Amino acid sequence: MAPPSIVRSALSVFFEYDTPRIVHIRSKKVGVINRFLQLAIISYVIGFAIIYKKGYQDFDDVNSAVTTKLKGVALTNLTDQGINGTRVWDVADYVIPPQENNAFFVMTNVIVTPGQQQDTCLESPSVPDGICSAEKPCVPDTPVINGNGVKTGACKPSPRNSSIEVCEIYAWCPVEKDDKPSKPVLLASQNFTVFIKNNIEFGKFGVKRRNLLEDATDSYLQTCNYNSENKSCPIFQLKTIVEMTGQDYETMALQGGVIQILIQWNCNLDYSVEDCVPEYQFRRLDSNDYKLAKGFNFRYAEPYLEDGVKKRTLIKAYGIRFIVTVEGKAGKFNFVPLFLNIGSGLALLSIATIVCDIVVLYFLKARKFFKEKKYLDVKGADAYETLDEGSMKSDSPVVQRKQ
Amino acid sequence: MAPPSIVRSALSVFFEYDTPRIVHIRSKKVGVINRFLQLAIISYVIGFAIIYKKGYQDFDDVNSAVTTKLKGVALTNLTDQGINGTRVWDVADYVIPPQENNAFFVMTNVIVTPGQQQDTCLESPSVPDGICSAEKPCVPDTPVINGNGVKTGACKPSPRNSSIEVCEIYAWCPVEKDDKPSKPVLLASQNFTVFIKNNIEFGKFGVKRRNLLEDATDSYLQTCNYNSENKSCPIFQLKTIVEMTGQDYETMALQGGVIQILIQWNCNLDYSVEDCVPEYQFRRLDSNDYKLAKGFNFRYAEPYLEDGVKKRTLIKAYGIRFIVTVEGKAGKFNFVPLFLNIGSGLALLSIATIVCDIVVLYFLKARKFFKEKKYLDVKGADAYETLDEGSMKSDSPVVQRKQ
Amino acid sequence: MAPPSIVRSALSVFFEYDTPRIVHIRSKKVGVINRFLQLAIISYVIGFAIIYKKGYQDFDDVNSAVTTKLKGVALTNLTDQGINGTRVWDVADYVIPPQENNAFFVMTNVIVTPGQQQDTCLESPSVPDGICSAEKPCVPDTPVINGNGVKTGACKPSPRNSSIEVCEIYAWCPVEKDDKPSKPVLLASQNFTVFIKNNIEFGKFGVKRRNLLEDATDSYLQTCNYNSENKSCPIFQLKTIVEMTGQDYETMALQGGVIQILIQWNCNLDYSVEDCVPEYQFRRLDSNDYKLAKGFNFRYAEPYLEDGVKKRTLIKAYGIRFIVTVEGKAGKFNFVPLFLNIGSGLALLSIATIVCDIVVLYFLKARKFFKEKKYLDVKGADAYETLDEGSMKSDSPVVQRKQ
Repeated sequence: MAPPSIVRSALSVFFEYDTPRIVHIRSKKVGVINRFLQLAIISYVIGFAIIYKKGYQDFDDVNSAVTTKLKGVALTNLTDQGINGTRVWDVADYVIPPQENNAFFVMTNVIVTPGQQQDTCLESPSVPDGICSAEKPCVPDTPVINGNGVKTGACKPSPRNSSIEVCEIYAWCPVEKDDKPSKPVLLASQNFTVFIKNNIEFGKFGVKRRNLLEDATDSYLQTCNYNSENKSCPIFQLKTIVEMTGQDYETMALQGGVIQILIQWNCNLDYSVEDCVPEYQFRRLDSNDYKLAKGFNFRYAEPYLEDGVKKRTLIKAYGIRFIVTVEGKAGKFNFVPLFLNIGSGLALLSIATIVCDIVVLYFLKARKFFKEKKYLDVKGADAYETLDEGSMKSDSPVVQRKQ
Repeated sequence: MAPPSIVRSALSVFFEYDTPRIVHIRSKKVGVINRFLQLAIISYVIGFAIIYKKGYQDFDDVNSAVTTKLKGVALTNLTDQGINGTRVWDVADYVIPPQENNAFFVMTNVIVTPGQQQDTCLESPSVPDGICSAEKPCVPDTPVINGNGVKTGACKPSPRNSSIEVCEIYAWCPVEKDDKPSKPVLLASQNFTVFIKNNIEFGKFGVKRRNLLEDATDSYLQTCNYNSENKSCPIFQLKTIVEMTGQDYETMALQGGVIQILIQWNCNLDYSVEDCVPEYQFRRLDSNDYKLAKGFNFRYAEPYLEDGVKKRTLIKAYGIRFIVTVEGKAGKFNFVPLFLNIGSGLALLSIATIVCDIVVLYFLKARKFFKEKKYLDVKGADAYETLDEGSMKSDSPVVQRKQ
Repeated sequence: MAPPSIVRSALSVFFEYDTPRIVHIRSKKVGVINRFLQLAIISYVIGFAIIYKKGYQDFDDVNSAVTTKLKGVALTNLTDQGINGTRVWDVADYVIPPQENNAFFVMTNVIVTPGQQQDTCLESPSVPDGICSAEKPCVPDTPVINGNGVKTGACKPSPRNSSIEVCEIYAWCPVEKDDKPSKPVLLASQNFTVFIKNNIEFGKFGVKRRNLLEDATDSYLQTCNYNSENKSCPIFQLKTIVEMTGQDYETMALQGGVIQILIQWNCNLDYSVEDCVPEYQFRRLDSNDYKLAKGFNFRYAEPYLEDGVKKRTLIKAYGIRFIVTVEGKAGKFNFVPLFLNIGSGLALLSIATIVCDIVVLYFLKARKFFKEKKYLDVKGADAYETLDEGSMKSDSPVVQRKQ
């Protein structure tokens, strides 16, 4: 027994297929344009999107942990700067704060003001707002703008520069000296080394790596140094880092600055995971080209008690702040992105047809001829809208048959 | 001599061009829908994707370095809080830690507990687990939950509140007082200023900028302040920052809080690079609407030696943590993104046709008429699959010719 | 009066509509392929892009502030490590630095070297470069590689290991001992708790949330702890965190390490905002699988003055650095992404047709038959290019009429 008409009709839907009817034009002019555009699009899709941009791979971003460890000792022999005689500086002295997340600071120059205590003393003559005279008195209890303390109201000759008078202030006394050393105190810091330990993970692919070769031994780590020949050692001399940014160490050590250490993990996991090793880049982030507001420094204090009096050593630390940034992604072959890229590439091919149509229909002499081939002109369709559906006939006279 | 047939046939491939055959329907109803949809799509592509989203530009993200420098001195005259008499607070006192990456903390309120030493003393009566009685004895060597030390086992009347008994503990003694000042100790911090130095780089375009005008002079930086009139000065009064987040300085200084300083560099490098200047936004990140766990504070200690005994000053610092976030991107004209956007725009136009087809073929009265024009019905193709290829003829009787 | 021809022609543009002419093929083979491909594409678009990837929603990234507060006291009773007798450790002792942005460090093990002062003393025999002999003398004024000071030139028997001679050095004397405790000094840190306050904002939707339930009370916060049963309490015991990463607390406390606390806010704002709660994940970021360069430690110093001499306590702190990362996005229904996804889904459907065309035109026996239906072959178009436009006629004999 034959299935009822409705079932047959529903089933037939699954056995249908619609495809556009095509005019196949044999024309040298348009053919060449068409093939050239198609070639360009296919080259773009295959060459750029699939091969160059690795469109056949699934990607994962890097997840990273960085710890740093500085080594090095410097000996200074100064009689000014508040540091008397021979002094040794080690890690606990020049790394401030002792640990930071993805960053570290190394002091390269310093102005030490020892023995400060809460008192009244005279403002430094180099602070404009601290200078006073009979016409410009010191207003009591107002802070000196960009200065070291709060005015008591008194105005006295400066002991540092007796030709001018300065305000007396409540402050940590004596106030800091302004004379920056002409050479960096800790120039020896250029020989300090930093061991950057970087563990990374590509979670999606279950790959864990670190910036230390599998065959590294303890004695290798005792002696190796990163340089242009040996790029696998994770121990960096500060001088090497600074010079790789194109800067001079002594100049930078004097003023301070900010340097980025970029660790890039770009791994193709279709190859051996052993080839997944980092690359290091170094660049100065602040700029030395400007006259104003150069370098990097900050102040901190070490409080202590002397004979029952609270005192502090004020330290103005100039130095280099190193910021460690880890970037990277890993790729691995996967069917889904490959198919998506091929799919969107096929869709892009329709652009070639659109461009050729514009040429053919508007710019060629034979445009009228092509138009007739491409288009079937149907007029007067609106007339049907007012009629009953039954009275519609297919080969109606209001339709212009052209082809 | 004519080339052989196979060569001619291969060459002819390069001179071909396929374009879909089209029914050109002149109908007011459908025409209007069609044109309206096309207009919407073109408006979207040109107006939104190309003009508004700058689809004609290539973009690069900002790479940034931020350093901050605080200025300001405050004078307090307290007889409680462990600070006796007049005391001056400067940068080294109220910025903790002295340098952070992309952040800084300013102490605005403080509880100082001087002279703590390792000893046994009584727990504060405000710690619930420290309260004891005959029924609830102090278990020796267990820490007081949320308390200051480890129980010795003894239970004694509290000197601070004699009606209750508290556990004796091993601790840094005396334990911290609980009474927070009702007014922020360092309310004067509202006049402190911070100089935010921000150097940025758009690596792809080789553009380096900083948030300081080229013509800025030293004396300008001595006096200028960021405010709603002068948005180019990179020196910010803390009060201005807090008020721009819509908060009251005194309230915030009492409890502490977290404020984000957002520096946005959105640069159109098709115009002059001089126009590439940052915008600042300020917002409070923690919320003041809740009753519990408000504000921001932490504790740190300053150790010292007094008469051979190790002591420390415990400081509970309330304050505002400022987080500096730099965002931004630069755009510059480039052909590739423009073409990609135009291409995907053209592809989107096919959606107008699809929608109109649905209207025409299913909703119009003349749908049968249009169907006949659009479709060539081919039946019985399966029959051919069983035949030899040779016996196939083109105008086969099983094909219904409709048009 | 009728409008002039040009106006009518311009107006008519608005009432036109082009749609491709289609061959409607009734074939079981191709129909099945076609419908299967269409189904696959529609499933992908609706199932994956729209439903799974929430293609009907507009998204916003999370903006977050994290503050952390540690609680807990530990009692140690050591006679070595430079810590004599009973000592209490509180927050101000074991959190270094006292506040960090999105991170905190808890000291779990420690080597204390008290009473260091600037002097000359003998290098530790465990530093290879510090060992000397008649053949390998100490070069004056050169630093000991990976050592504690700068050589004076003298070479003397080591008091720690009398069989070898070591260089005398300028250093902070006495130099640090090398013997790491075999058990973590602050193993009690496993009971410390951290209160992680996380305020977030989805700016685009104006939604602010925090990781604390609305109905949380002060007494709840005094007693609750995060664990596998109660995932809404924002107070975490350190032991719980470490064990959730699959590590053993004691092993990790001995060497130190880095742990990430990931707070994920994935919110569907189409549902109640009350359901927008965070999930916590914990993982160890550094790796314990390697032999070299394990764990995490750093050194810092506490300077003090004793009888007029500047001294310091050197502390080598081992511990766990916790990094708090906040991720997340919120989605809310929006018409624009829905339409964009439907649009691109419709465009993808053309791929089904392309694939079927390839099958039909190249692989089926009836390919010649289908080709004739689909294509209208137009030859000799180039000939027209040399003629005047006027002499062109539509039904020209050079056109092969096939259908």
